[in-house]
Amino acid sequence: MKLVCSQSNLNTNLSIVSRAVPSRPTQPILGKVRLQADVESQQISLTAFDGSLGISTSFKAQVTESGDIALPAKLLSDIVSRLPAGDISLDLETEKAIVSLTQASGRYQVTGQESEEFPELPVVEDGEVLTLPTEALRSGLNGCLFAASTDDTKQILTGVHLKVYSDSLEFAATDGHRLAVVKTTNQPESESQEESQEELQEESKPEEDQHPIADEASFEVTVPARALRELDRIANQQKQDKTVALHFDQTQVVFELKSQKLTTRTLEGQYPPYHQLIPKEFQRLVTVEQRQMVQVLERINIIADQKNHLVKFSLDRESQQLTVSVDESEVGSGQESMAAQISGESLEMEFNVKYLLEAIKAIPSQELQMQLNAEAEPVILTPLGGMQMTCLVMPVQRR
Amino acid sequence: MKLVCSQSNLNTNLSIVSRAVPSRPTQPILGKVRLQADVESQQISLTAFDGSLGISTSFKAQVTESGDIALPAKLLSDIVSRLPAGDISLDLETEKAIVSLTQASGRYQVTGQESEEFPELPVVEDGEVLTLPTEALRSGLNGCLFAASTDDTKQILTGVHLKVYSDSLEFAATDGHRLAVVKTTNQPESESQEESQEELQEESKPEEDQHPIADEASFEVTVPARALRELDRIANQQKQDKTVALHFDQTQVVFELKSQKLTTRTLEGQYPPYHQLIPKEFQRLVTVEQRQMVQVLERINIIADQKNHLVKFSLDRESQQLTVSVDESEVGSGQESMAAQISGESLEMEFNVKYLLEAIKAIPSQELQMQLNAEAEPVILTPLGGMQMTCLVMPVQRR
Repeated sequence: MKLVCSQSNLNTNLSIVSRAVPSRPTQPILGKVRLQADVESQQISLTAFDGSLGISTSFKAQVTESGDIALPAKLLSDIVSRLPAGDISLDLETEKAIVSLTQASGRYQVTGQESEEFPELPVVEDGEVLTLPTEALRSGLNGCLFAASTDDTKQILTGVHLKVYSDSLEFAATDGHRLAVVKTTNQPESESQEESQEELQEESKPEEDQHPIADEASFEVTVPARALRELDRIANQQKQDKTVALHFDQTQVVFELKSQKLTTRTLEGQYPPYHQLIPKEFQRLVTVEQRQMVQVLERINIIADQKNHLVKFSLDRESQQLTVSVDESEVGSGQESMAAQISGESLEMEFNVKYLLEAIKAIPSQELQMQLNAEAEPVILTPLGGMQMTCLVMPVQRR
Repeated sequence: MKLVCSQSNLNTNLSIVSRAVPSRPTQPILGKVRLQADVESQQISLTAFDGSLGISTSFKAQVTESGDIALPAKLLSDIVSRLPAGDISLDLETEKAIVSLTQASGRYQVTGQESEEFPELPVVEDGEVLTLPTEALRSGLNGCLFAASTDDTKQILTGVHLKVYSDSLEFAATDGHRLAVVKTTNQPESESQEESQEELQEESKPEEDQHPIADEASFEVTVPARALRELDRIANQQKQDKTVALHFDQTQVVFELKSQKLTTRTLEGQYPPYHQLIPKEFQRLVTVEQRQMVQVLERINIIADQKNHLVKFSLDRESQQLTVSVDESEVGSGQESMAAQISGESLEMEFNVKYLLEAIKAIPSQELQMQLNAEAEPVILTPLGGMQMTCLVMPVQRR
C-alpha cells in the first residue's frame, strides 16, 4: 500500500468510523479500523465494527499501490488528529504490518494487524429498500431517541421501532414511562393532507391495532438506539447528502449515505402495541410556549432533582394560567406560573420532571399542545404545526 | 433580611465562593455559603470555607433589612444561575431559616441554617504585608503550579513555596521530578536590571545556599497549590483589580483583592533547598521555538503515552537540528526534527515526556532555551526574554 491523502480527510473519516470501535474490544481485531486503499477507484475506505454496529466510509486519495490493513483505531486517530494540515503519505510494510505516516516534520510508524481477521460487515441482500430525505430521518430520530430505554434488561425497549408504510416511515420509542412517536412522509404537502383526512374517516373502524394510520405497515423492525444516535451524528456531519437509503430485513438494517454506510443488527422480540396507549379523546387542551416551559421546568428540576423528581401542574381555567410547582419540604420549594390557553376544567397532576422535560425539549415548535383527560391518565404532548409527533408521558400517582 | 440584587451579580459571586465549598463536607454547615446583608454599607457578602481554604466576596445590593444566614451552596447556585437576568428579591423568614427568591416569573424557597455555626475565616493579625501587581502574581502562579506534587503523602510538595525578598517574590514548586522557579518583581525595569548585575557579581561568593539572589528572603511560606489555583481563577475573573495584598504569618496566608478575600492555612514542614539543584554552569545551550516544541511533544506523547512515557532528544550540532523521537516497539514509533541553535557537543538524552511537556507549555515566550550538561544531568528550561523563570526537568536514566 502506498498513498497520499489530506490530513483533514483522513481525520474526519477516522472520527466517523471510530464511533463503531468498542471501548473494550472482545477480540483485539475489533479495536482496530480496517484501512483499504484502491488504485482503480483512487479511494481509501475505512471500516469499524463492534459485532453489532458497523460503520464504513470512503474518500478520495492518490493511491499508487492498493493495500489492506487493520490499524489500532484510537492510536491512529490520536496521531492523525494532531498532525498539521496538509498531505500525509501512508506506506505499508506488508511483512511487518507496519504503516508509516510521513509529513514534512517527521514520520510516525504504527504496528497493525493483517486484515484477513477483520470481520466483513453484514449486508442485506433481499430486504426492503426505502429512500428517505436525510432531514426526515433526522427529525424522526431527534423526536423519539430520548424516550428509548437505557435498561439492558428490557432489550427490545432499548431500540427505536420503525414501521414502513407505503408513503411514510414511523419512528417510535418507549421505556414504559413515556412514549414518543414521529411520522415522517416522503409525499408532497397536499397529498399528505388528503391522507390525514382519510385517517379521520377510518378512525371509527374497530381495528385491533386502532392506530390512526389507515394502511397497514408493510414492514417493521426495531433498531438499537445506539446505532441510530451514531447515524444521526453522521447525517449531521454529512449535510450535503440529501437522501439516505435504508435496506432492511428481519435481522439487519443498513443505512446508506453517499460515502458512508452504517449497519446494525436489529433487536429481537415483539415491540409493544404502543398505539393502543394513546387516548383518542381528551377533556382538556392546553397550549403553552415551548421555550418558556423548558426554562421553567429546568429551574423547577433543580429542586425536584434533590429528592422525588416530582413536579405539580395546576391548570387554572379561569385565570388561563398553568402553574408549575415543586415542594421538597426539607430542601426547598418553587413555583412559577405562565400564560396558557386552557380549555376544559381546572386540574392538578404530578409528573416525573425528567420525563416531561426530555419530551418537551424534543418538540421542535414555538408552541406546544398538551392534551389531557384526568389526573391519573397520560398527557399527550404535540408540536403546534410542523411535524407529526406525539409524546406521551405517564403522570405519577399522587400520594 | 430583605434585599434586592441583580441576578448576574449574585450568580458571579456565588460561583466565586462556591470553589471553597467542599464536595463532601465533614460538617453540614461547610456545605453552605454564608450570606450576610448589611443595610449600612448596602452590600451583600458571601463566604465559604472548607476548613483550610476560605473565600469571601462582596457586592452592592439594595438592602432594606440586614440579615445573616447559611444557605445550601450548590442548590442556591444552581437556582440562581438558571434564573433570567434582572432583579431578584431575597427575603429571610428568620424563625424557619427559609429564604425566598422572588422574580416576575415565580418564587423559590430554600431552607438554610442559622449562621452562628458558620466558622469565621481565619485572619492574619501581625504578619507580613506585601502588595503585588495582580499580573505578577498570576505569571508567578502560572509558571510554577504545574510542578507541584499531587501526592498527598508528600504534603509539603503539594504546595508552592513563596519567598519574600525586599523587592520581589519568588514562587517555587517541585514534585521531585521537576522544579519550577519564578521570580516576580515590583521594581521598575531599570532597577531590576541593576539588581541582576549585582547578582552576577555576587554569584562567585561561596554562600551556603548558593541561590542567585543577592539578599536573604525576609519571609518564606508554603501555600497549598489548590488554594493558589483558586486565587489564579479569581484574579483572572477580576481583571480590573490591579493589585493584590498578601498578609502572611507562619500558619496562615490571606490574599486580598478589592472585593474578594482568599484565606488558606500554610503547609507545615521544611521546603527542600531547591536552589541547590540548579546547575550554575552548562556545557550545551539549545534554542528552539516554544510552540513548535509543544506541538511535536504532543504528537510524540501519543505514542510515548502507550507505555513508558519516554522521549529521546538527540542534539546534532553539525546540522543544527534537534530530533525528538519515541520507540514503543510493539505499538509504534515516531520521529520529528526541528531547527535549533545548538552550541556544545552533540548529545542524546531521555525524558519523561509529560514532565517536559508541562514545563515547556508553561513557558510564556516565543523561543525557549534549554541548558544542559551531560546525559544524566538535569535540563534547565527558560524563556528567551520576558520573565525570570527557571524550569528544571530530570532526565530518565537510559537503560
